[in-house]
Amino acid sequence: MSYHFSRVVDLDFDAAVDATKQALQQQGFGVLTEIDVQQTLKKKLDVNVRPYRILGACNPTMAYQALQAENKIGTMLPCNVIVQVRDDGKTEVSSVDPVASMAAIDNAKLGGIAAQVREMLKRVVDSVGRTQPAKAS
Amino acid sequence: MSYHFSRVVDLDFDAAVDATKQALQQQGFGVLTEIDVQQTLKKKLDVNVRPYRILGACNPTMAYQALQAENKIGTMLPCNVIVQVRDDGKTEVSSVDPVASMAAIDNAKLGGIAAQVREMLKRVVDSVGRTQPAKAS
Repeated sequence: MSYHFSRVVDLDFDAAVDATKQALQQQGFGVLTEIDVQQTLKKKLDVNVRPYRILGACNPTMAYQALQAENKIGTMLPCNVIVQVRDDGKTEVSSVDPVASMAAIDNAKLGGIAAQVREMLKRVVDSVGRTQPAKAS
Repeated sequence: MSYHFSRVVDLDFDAAVDATKQALQQQGFGVLTEIDVQQTLKKKLDVNVRPYRILGACNPTMAYQALQAENKIGTMLPCNVIVQVRDDGKTEVSSVDPVASMAAIDNAKLGGIAAQVREMLKRVVDSVGRTQPAKAS
């Protein structure tokens, strides 16, 4: 079983980050956390890595259900969607597959929730860069 | 296989959050993200849940090694340590077990790194509230 869904997008890095945030919003996810891995590793270790962003995505309703089903599931929340520039220069968007990351948890109710979130995250990855631009608010 | 390490601590919630941050720092982890689950769910869904905090912990050296071994491992980073007040009023600290959450990833090099981080996170959970106060800086 793969642990992620990934797709190469025809966007530069910054545009892909913006488009991913927009796709998350349209599928009902908020972005609770954002880590600029390139900047963090430069600052902490003085190493140079390719552009790499980790977005921590959370659908509040699903997260609330998950926490009620399994009180330590916060160890695996939020669900991450990452954007990176690959070695070949292409921009790639990947989502964690929560069914894979939560496979070690023996909880049928949680499994059902993870399966739903998996489908929502698949739609996010599939729709990045294909959605309509959001209206300015 | 359990997917977390947990320990009840003899501290109130806020003190446990502070002590967990201190224990993470002493084991070489930075806290890159912090989610106040109680506040987030109140704001988004207007529901009341017990105090619950998610700390996203990252040891830069280990994260850099993990990213070099497996370029999509950012879908599972940082490693979360959570603090919550349980139904019985006790304060509990839990860390994800990265070996469990990354079990679906077929990568021996990553497995070795996850095993090291697992031991570091175990030490964090074991030491919360038992460490010396950090000197003011």
